Amino acid sequence: MSRTVIRGGLVITAAEETRADVLVEDGRVAALAAPDSAYAQGWTADRTIDATDKYVIPGGVDAHTHMELPFGGTHASDTFETGTRAAAWGGTTTIVDFAVQSVGHSLREGLDTWHEKADGKCAVDYGFHMIMSDVTTSSLKEMDTLVGLGVSSFKLFMAYPGVFYSDDGQILRAMQRGAANGGLIMMHAENGIAIDVLVEQALAEGRTDPRYHGEVRKVLLEAEATHRAIQLSRVAGAPLYVVHVSAEEAVAELAQARDKGLPVFGETCPQYLFLSTDNLAEPDFEGAKYVCSTPLRPREHQAALWRGLRTGDLQVVSTDHCPFCFTGQKELGRGDFSRIPNGLPGVENRMDLLHQAVVEGHISRRRWIEIACATPARMFGLYPKKGTIAPGADADLVVYDPRAQQTLSAETHHMNVDYSAYEGKRITGQVETVLSRGETVIDRRRFTGRAGHGRYLPRDTCQYLD
Amino acid sequence: MSRTVIRGGLVITAAEETRADVLVEDGRVAALAAPDSAYAQGWTADRTIDATDKYVIPGGVDAHTHMELPFGGTHASDTFETGTRAAAWGGTTTIVDFAVQSVGHSLREGLDTWHEKADGKCAVDYGFHMIMSDVTTSSLKEMDTLVGLGVSSFKLFMAYPGVFYSDDGQILRAMQRGAANGGLIMMHAENGIAIDVLVEQALAEGRTDPRYHGEVRKVLLEAEATHRAIQLSRVAGAPLYVVHVSAEEAVAELAQARDKGLPVFGETCPQYLFLSTDNLAEPDFEGAKYVCSTPLRPREHQAALWRGLRTGDLQVVSTDHCPFCFTGQKELGRGDFSRIPNGLPGVENRMDLLHQAVVEGHISRRRWIEIACATPARMFGLYPKKGTIAPGADADLVVYDPRAQQTLSAETHHMNVDYSAYEGKRITGQVETVLSRGETVIDRRRFTGRAGHGRYLPRDTCQYLD
Amino acid sequence: MSRTVIRGGLVITAAEETRADVLVEDGRVAALAAPDSAYAQGWTADRTIDATDKYVIPGGVDAHTHMELPFGGTHASDTFETGTRAAAWGGTTTIVDFAVQSVGHSLREGLDTWHEKADGKCAVDYGFHMIMSDVTTSSLKEMDTLVGLGVSSFKLFMAYPGVFYSDDGQILRAMQRGAANGGLIMMHAENGIAIDVLVEQALAEGRTDPRYHGEVRKVLLEAEATHRAIQLSRVAGAPLYVVHVSAEEAVAELAQARDKGLPVFGETCPQYLFLSTDNLAEPDFEGAKYVCSTPLRPREHQAALWRGLRTGDLQVVSTDHCPFCFTGQKELGRGDFSRIPNGLPGVENRMDLLHQAVVEGHISRRRWIEIACATPARMFGLYPKKGTIAPGADADLVVYDPRAQQTLSAETHHMNVDYSAYEGKRITGQVETVLSRGETVIDRRRFTGRAGHGRYLPRDTCQYLD
Amino acid sequence: MSRTVIRGGLVITAAEETRADVLVEDGRVAALAAPDSAYAQGWTADRTIDATDKYVIPGGVDAHTHMELPFGGTHASDTFETGTRAAAWGGTTTIVDFAVQSVGHSLREGLDTWHEKADGKCAVDYGFHMIMSDVTTSSLKEMDTLVGLGVSSFKLFMAYPGVFYSDDGQILRAMQRGAANGGLIMMHAENGIAIDVLVEQALAEGRTDPRYHGEVRKVLLEAEATHRAIQLSRVAGAPLYVVHVSAEEAVAELAQARDKGLPVFGETCPQYLFLSTDNLAEPDFEGAKYVCSTPLRPREHQAALWRGLRTGDLQVVSTDHCPFCFTGQKELGRGDFSRIPNGLPGVENRMDLLHQAVVEGHISRRRWIEIACATPARMFGLYPKKGTIAPGADADLVVYDPRAQQTLSAETHHMNVDYSAYEGKRITGQVETVLSRGETVIDRRRFTGRAGHGRYLPRDTCQYLD
Repeated sequence: MSRTVIRGGLVITAAEETRADVLVEDGRVAALAAPDSAYAQGWTADRTIDATDKYVIPGGVDAHTHMELPFGGTHASDTFETGTRAAAWGGTTTIVDFAVQSVGHSLREGLDTWHEKADGKCAVDYGFHMIMSDVTTSSLKEMDTLVGLGVSSFKLFMAYPGVFYSDDGQILRAMQRGAANGGLIMMHAENGIAIDVLVEQALAEGRTDPRYHGEVRKVLLEAEATHRAIQLSRVAGAPLYVVHVSAEEAVAELAQARDKGLPVFGETCPQYLFLSTDNLAEPDFEGAKYVCSTPLRPREHQAALWRGLRTGDLQVVSTDHCPFCFTGQKELGRGDFSRIPNGLPGVENRMDLLHQAVVEGHISRRRWIEIACATPARMFGLYPKKGTIAPGADADLVVYDPRAQQTLSAETHHMNVDYSAYEGKRITGQVETVLSRGETVIDRRRFTGRAGHGRYLPRDTCQYLD
Repeated sequence: MSRTVIRGGLVITAAEETRADVLVEDGRVAALAAPDSAYAQGWTADRTIDATDKYVIPGGVDAHTHMELPFGGTHASDTFETGTRAAAWGGTTTIVDFAVQSVGHSLREGLDTWHEKADGKCAVDYGFHMIMSDVTTSSLKEMDTLVGLGVSSFKLFMAYPGVFYSDDGQILRAMQRGAANGGLIMMHAENGIAIDVLVEQALAEGRTDPRYHGEVRKVLLEAEATHRAIQLSRVAGAPLYVVHVSAEEAVAELAQARDKGLPVFGETCPQYLFLSTDNLAEPDFEGAKYVCSTPLRPREHQAALWRGLRTGDLQVVSTDHCPFCFTGQKELGRGDFSRIPNGLPGVENRMDLLHQAVVEGHISRRRWIEIACATPARMFGLYPKKGTIAPGADADLVVYDPRAQQTLSAETHHMNVDYSAYEGKRITGQVETVLSRGETVIDRRRFTGRAGHGRYLPRDTCQYLD
Repeated sequence: MSRTVIRGGLVITAAEETRADVLVEDGRVAALAAPDSAYAQGWTADRTIDATDKYVIPGGVDAHTHMELPFGGTHASDTFETGTRAAAWGGTTTIVDFAVQSVGHSLREGLDTWHEKADGKCAVDYGFHMIMSDVTTSSLKEMDTLVGLGVSSFKLFMAYPGVFYSDDGQILRAMQRGAANGGLIMMHAENGIAIDVLVEQALAEGRTDPRYHGEVRKVLLEAEATHRAIQLSRVAGAPLYVVHVSAEEAVAELAQARDKGLPVFGETCPQYLFLSTDNLAEPDFEGAKYVCSTPLRPREHQAALWRGLRTGDLQVVSTDHCPFCFTGQKELGRGDFSRIPNGLPGVENRMDLLHQAVVEGHISRRRWIEIACATPARMFGLYPKKGTIAPGADADLVVYDPRAQQTLSAETHHMNVDYSAYEGKRITGQVETVLSRGETVIDRRRFTGRAGHGRYLPRDTCQYLD
Repeated sequence: MSRTVIRGGLVITAAEETRADVLVEDGRVAALAAPDSAYAQGWTADRTIDATDKYVIPGGVDAHTHMELPFGGTHASDTFETGTRAAAWGGTTTIVDFAVQSVGHSLREGLDTWHEKADGKCAVDYGFHMIMSDVTTSSLKEMDTLVGLGVSSFKLFMAYPGVFYSDDGQILRAMQRGAANGGLIMMHAENGIAIDVLVEQALAEGRTDPRYHGEVRKVLLEAEATHRAIQLSRVAGAPLYVVHVSAEEAVAELAQARDKGLPVFGETCPQYLFLSTDNLAEPDFEGAKYVCSTPLRPREHQAALWRGLRTGDLQVVSTDHCPFCFTGQKELGRGDFSRIPNGLPGVENRMDLLHQAVVEGHISRRRWIEIACATPARMFGLYPKKGTIAPGADADLVVYDPRAQQTLSAETHHMNVDYSAYEGKRITGQVETVLSRGETVIDRRRFTGRAGHGRYLPRDTCQYLD
């Protein structure tokens, strides 16, 4: 039996800020104790980590990553190995990635393929959602099986006709099935059919620069799809999780649904909180670095997203980490924005960027942990192992220095991509030490983990509905 | 140093449900540990409480009680002694009562009077809000002093003209002052000026029965006042806490304000969740038992209140405990509903009724603790001592048996009042044992506490705004 | 030159109720005069109609009829001859019917076919909207031509996949074209893709009776499509006219859009105002008589429709007249509600039913004329010829007896269909005499018109946007 | 019998734009005829007015003027003689002014005083609303009498405590009485109690310039009072007319109420549509010229007001004409904005400014006539005599030249005040000739009327509710 004690830190969870010492036994949190209590003082351990003046927080849970995703004739540039190592550097100890069903193939085939990619590679624990590209009678049936295998969430697309797109009938059927088997439907909510008309018109008129990517994927078409997904979920009697919410009007749709008491949830990502169409408009094709879908929005939308995070109309911040190198990948779309691979790197930056939001007063410390650790864990059936610091939980722990200064940069980050979306951004706060199930994977800013330490996490169904 | 261990229970807080053993040292929670951890198994204690198959929850925080309140020529029938003893029986270990400023007198005089009433009498800890009946230049200044004394919340009335009523100018000034000194304004939101017209008209037309109390205090006039209070708080730049929200339309006003991100909070009470105008209409003047303000509403409003509690548009459930005996007190209003003393007993029933709501599926177990313990503690500056179970917190702990069956009745309750508003109601769940700062005040359904154990709690300013 | 004078009536238009004599010269209104003026008293005429104690109103404009429509393997049972004769009996002197583009064919072909059906047959004047079943590059271009030919409105379907259905991209393109050429898009707003899933599930489960037609075509799916159509019209910068609005939630979508100042309009029909799912549930397959889409709704929705008509959130009442005989036509759907031809007879009943609404206090007399005559005329470019009584307007005039009593019945109506949707309904008010361009087509409840009197009306673009 | 014919103009009413000749007999409109009809061509007349290329519109109805109003120790500078003459110059042929009840006096005394002021002085017809400054049992009873005397509307103030202010109980009682006797309650909706706190604070802090008048009378406090007035009217079951709506948020309150179908109406004034806080901030105390209550708002609010006028959420544009000379009157408030007499001149400019709005595309021509003539006439019981051009109506007619160019200026206007709120503003369109009951009061821009021509108009109750 191995024992670690983390002493003297401020333990922050979604609910509490407590001066407490944390005792870790055999990969789990064994106890929390008041530092001045006789008991805590009596603890002995193999290793003692001094967290004086530091925060002790749960490891981050990033519920939206796309390692090695095939997209537009290329692949996301982070493998499960490089991506999860970068996650660890950034204080994230769990990712939930997306296995993809190919058209004409079963869900299981897709899942197996992704297991193969990840198995033995990961530095931290990982689970899978399933992208359904082909909702048929048989894939609907398969959903039950996957829930049994711990793949309890299914992503559908109202965008990307001809690729991932499902029509409203397929969506309704999948939602009905999810309502029955506990599978949570995750929705990419953009009216892709209408967007494709605008794309075609833009290209025909010679509007080919990256910024037109933002113009054709209109706010109204995200809001519309969000509204439609909510109405379909009501017809199905199913909960709904909308991924990467970017627009004020989409937040308003969620808020309105939630005021009615509907089980409708929204995720946003750091890029929507910190970047904007100003970035998409950067000259010399630099805007391509910021092409993702839903797209970046005008700066004014950020206030609504922050407000949504404060009021609880948005519940989760994930990264939608899906990096493509500028050289050779993003460049595929020179002269045609619709060919730029969609996606941004971010898995390493999320915890820091959100701490910066704490520093700037957007959210409280507890809300930081709630949206980045606790709620994603509950939402995707990983609780109580992940997302909190409590007796019995996995000892996924981060010692975070709230006063350290750092500058984000491609030169220093660990993601396998040749640019940073936040190049030069100054951040107050930094991950110092990271434990994954009690093992130190980052030790005072040195990587001490290994590929294969990370285990596959079969997940329960959504625990956020209780 | 005294040591108690509570073993084998399910520890429930606002955020977690954990199988954990709780170690209490010197009146505080010293540690929480996984039951199967080597450490927990090694604990020794003066006393061990077996909580197998039980819940271990924080003691309840009832932020709205009126012990011994003078009203309509009589007094609320519970003294601080009887009332806090009943609270303990019901698993509530903290009350925040209301000191009252009399017109023409200072806040301090009112506070001193209430200190005198409570000092040495209470079975559990207590704090004070201040009712401002006379908002003047000098009482506005005094607010700063009171905040310094730990009285950091001030109740104003838009109802009861000529008694507690403040006009919109007084309200605005008090809110401005609160915005500056951290004092939280609590609002009784009913348009009392308009209501008094309707009261006069009802009485003139011979509509004198208790049920007319409900008819003249119209839903629209609660909603209107709620809206007005919100707008005034926006002008003042101050947060707002609306007490005893009873009507669907008032919840809608709060929801709308919160969607905008305004720091506006709402409290409801068990009587609005479980009783209705049907009770007010009970024959033989029995309806008088249910006269309180805001009044009970038609049954349809209950769904909106439950929804508000689930969505977070309502944050707190308090009791507004203000008992008057049917015989001799409620009877003052025979033939004139406006003379019925306003108020209901409830301090003993709140935790049980809300557990019943868990059983019936209205709220989750964690939300039960959040609305009844954690949020009131944060809202009124009692955190982290009260409202949670965490290392360092006061050991105000309840062992709750979720399977016990009980029937609420005046014959068995401990409040000093000759009727129960919930007579005959069957409840699943019961308080078994209660610790207040580590001392056992209820021991397996025997009162072991004493008058004077309870201490005055000087409070910080609102901690729910973080 | 022929001259008719209508004396002594109360002339009602959308804006005025005036005691005035009406002078008709050569098919047009020549003058309106105060009855006691020297001039009016001096008038001479070939014919004088005594309207003492009667209303003189503009002939009705029914902007939504389907004479001879092919549907589900059969045809609507009224021809242009029988249908327009029935219209005249009911005080309607203008219809706008729908020409239909067949898939794979041009708009022009469809229009020509419909001209052929109507030419020389009609008892009253008629125009055409165009149903676009096949939105392609070439049919989009053809829209311009049709606007030039006086076909200035185009109906699209979000329902009926595989038949009339257009996807969101086709809708967007048609709206963009309409925004450019002045063509108004009329929308059948139901999410037909989702409905078809529910239809299939209902039939598979043996729910085959007519009432399931109402259950599967859910209120939420009408509201959703209405919302989506509005958002698409915003993207296109185009006005929008939603046909046959039936559900409270759809009215709410329109109201919300109109509060923003958007040019969004709604039509409802008498069947939604006077009938309900109670009719759909009539036993012995009688419910089939009431099968139409959007479907009849639960009775509670009627209040919202009346309110919408009063507040101006709904602008027009048309009939969607599309009769199928019970025997031989409606019966096609025995054992499978999805095979019941969709449609109800009504062109003859609209003006009377809406007068009944005046009698019952739902709307004012002026609003009756506004929603049934003036607004449809403006909406579809027929003003100032149609829809009002003013110097220069076509002398389409109805002498209406507001005190006559009648009972609606298939035995007495003139529509070519074997049942009445309002069988036995008692109505106060009746058409007495009808002039079409100055010619008497109904003379004191005798038909004096003829097939071929009615002329094709090339229409301007929407005049309701001014 | 005298006869006038107006030939060749475009007759514009709220509902129609018709090429028609207008025959006037004995002060009333005898007939409207198509210009090319045999009858119209046969007309003979004492006088023929050529309106070729001109509009023929109903005389304006200004439902909100304050001639000779005592305010803040001075009087509005226009008498009934000078003010109604200026009205005639501006194409307004009816005013409804406000008689004022003094505290401690009866309504009748106030009415008699105002009759005395106006009798024999007016150039055009006039009626009276009644300002209730003292709502008591006896003045409530008197309301019935006044309705009988043709004073069928009563203005209450939620502002000006100690002067005109009524509390919510008085408002509720007056509304209840109005609901019974048909009297329409007009509301000055600003929370004057809260505003007075802000005024006192501003002055105490040395913020004394005119622009602080706009800052203390906050948008939120207009919106709040508007909401409250609506709720009180719902409790009373009474309609409500809110005067001089100036803020976007107040329009939103009205829109929300109207979506529910409530009989709630709103008036705005040209100053809110064309001026803004920029004017209030003009240096050298010039801002005082623009001090009125509700105050001018930031420019952004104008769009909401125009939208409200288009959507029908605002029904009427009146002037709130209440002029005070800059020299000697406005100057009373140097060094203390609260002493600046509240009010702006405007009775002469309204029809022109609204025509300018037509030219600029804010509203249609018909809507111009509706908000400035037809609706105020209906709203205040003057229909069908006033507000339209129809057989039998009073021949209050304006020949308006839509192409004339003019520049508004104190040098050329006819109001008795030493400045123009619109000095230098260029307007397309001008009144050419004005008839009042058939008599020419302005003849091709020469005043041909006389004091005493104008008659008192006893009014019916509100006709806009039909």
